[in-house]
Amino acid sequence: MNRTKRTILFISDGTGITAETLGQALLSQFDTKIDFERQTHPYVDSPDKANQVRDEINHIAGRDGVPPIVFDTLVDPQVRDIISSSNGVMMDVFQTFLKPLESALETESAYSVGMSHAVKPDNGYDLRIDAVNFALDNDDGARIRYYDQADLILIGVSRCGKTPTCLYLAMQFGIRAANYPLTEEDLDNPVLPAILKKHKSKLFGLTIDPVRLSAIREQRRPDSRYCSPHQCHFEVNEVEAIYRREGIPHIATTDQSVEEISTQVLAMSGLKRRHV
Amino acid sequence: MNRTKRTILFISDGTGITAETLGQALLSQFDTKIDFERQTHPYVDSPDKANQVRDEINHIAGRDGVPPIVFDTLVDPQVRDIISSSNGVMMDVFQTFLKPLESALETESAYSVGMSHAVKPDNGYDLRIDAVNFALDNDDGARIRYYDQADLILIGVSRCGKTPTCLYLAMQFGIRAANYPLTEEDLDNPVLPAILKKHKSKLFGLTIDPVRLSAIREQRRPDSRYCSPHQCHFEVNEVEAIYRREGIPHIATTDQSVEEISTQVLAMSGLKRRHV
Repeated sequence: MNRTKRTILFISDGTGITAETLGQALLSQFDTKIDFERQTHPYVDSPDKANQVRDEINHIAGRDGVPPIVFDTLVDPQVRDIISSSNGVMMDVFQTFLKPLESALETESAYSVGMSHAVKPDNGYDLRIDAVNFALDNDDGARIRYYDQADLILIGVSRCGKTPTCLYLAMQFGIRAANYPLTEEDLDNPVLPAILKKHKSKLFGLTIDPVRLSAIREQRRPDSRYCSPHQCHFEVNEVEAIYRREGIPHIATTDQSVEEISTQVLAMSGLKRRHV
Repeated sequence: MNRTKRTILFISDGTGITAETLGQALLSQFDTKIDFERQTHPYVDSPDKANQVRDEINHIAGRDGVPPIVFDTLVDPQVRDIISSSNGVMMDVFQTFLKPLESALETESAYSVGMSHAVKPDNGYDLRIDAVNFALDNDDGARIRYYDQADLILIGVSRCGKTPTCLYLAMQFGIRAANYPLTEEDLDNPVLPAILKKHKSKLFGLTIDPVRLSAIREQRRPDSRYCSPHQCHFEVNEVEAIYRREGIPHIATTDQSVEEISTQVLAMSGLKRRHV
């Protein structure tokens, strides 16, 4: 019996994203010395497919010598019963929470399959795609004439994380975020570039540990002045001085995930998400 | 008492993304005639902040005349107890699942705060940012010389959803996806462009309902030949003929969310995600 390896299955009648997100969050609370081997089974929406997955679970239980752990967000009772009859340890998300929710809302749930990440008339899907397009069109200071349509303008030195943050804000929250790189020219200047000054209330600054910045830039342009520790220190110091002087809210991106950075930007800027 | 409105709170000691994802998935099972008003409270990581949120919950309960529903992923027992003492209906995610998981894994959880979306040494964070950069650098046929480094090359007509799908595949799964637009020139040609031919095993096709395509293009370039129903029909017919003739796997993006499209592309292409 091998206790250091454990197979985890995420099973869904839709994309599997909810099961994965919840399962990953829970597993992140456990010892990393356990080697979790993950499988996702999306679109398990018929008894036939459920039987296949059940056989797979039983096969894994035999192979591993220990039952796999199953996170499922299956809605159809028949499909769910088939999976439940396997040798896996079931973490049944909908089963667990739908009943208490039904009683709190005093209404029955729809028990409809694959709804979580489907396009619904009011779920702001087009808003999100529009926001992604806005982020791409207004990336890296490429265009500035649409800044009046931006919810937010992220500023910071090159490679501090502006673009991924803009894209995540767009995809997850429907926020229209432009970004503008503060270059050496801007940093030498004692005043903000005019275009930024004009939209000062929308500015949000990112900063980063200069050692980390140097390592990131090294990958992009090895052995350059651009990636030298001296240059990175200079740029970061200057940019942080601007944030302080101008009273621009800012956070450090070092060692933070794009989810963490984006959530903090949203909270600190007081912006209301367009997509929920 | 107003039964058509209900306040929903997502409370977390981290980003709140897990609580939101789970809560949204569950709420999507309920009648859309209930008007859910959502609030997210991230970074509730001290008794002081917990007391504030508890007061807010009680205020809402009084205002709405019905208790708000609280999805929480709080790990710290002290913080969680404060929130639980409110008048909200608690859907306590970690409380519910951590104990059964501990017993299945025969080990104690770390009970550490804000871990779900944090950067961990093995969670492929740089992989994801690299993949986002790859998608941006190789978007829209801009560059083709790195196709040997791509996991996947999405093809399709202009505005069928290639770019958002590439970005989502990168952000969520760490997949390095390039995309190449099939233009009129390519469609007139009886053979695939040489660069695509060379990487045929990496190709995946997107298609879309021509009526929907026309509406999307209309927003981009109103009253153009580009958005005309005739042109959209022509392009979609041609591109689908290419997919069939060349045996390229493909799916329709119409009425699908970027999560659904990406999950299907991943499943059908047999690609293994780099990020879990």
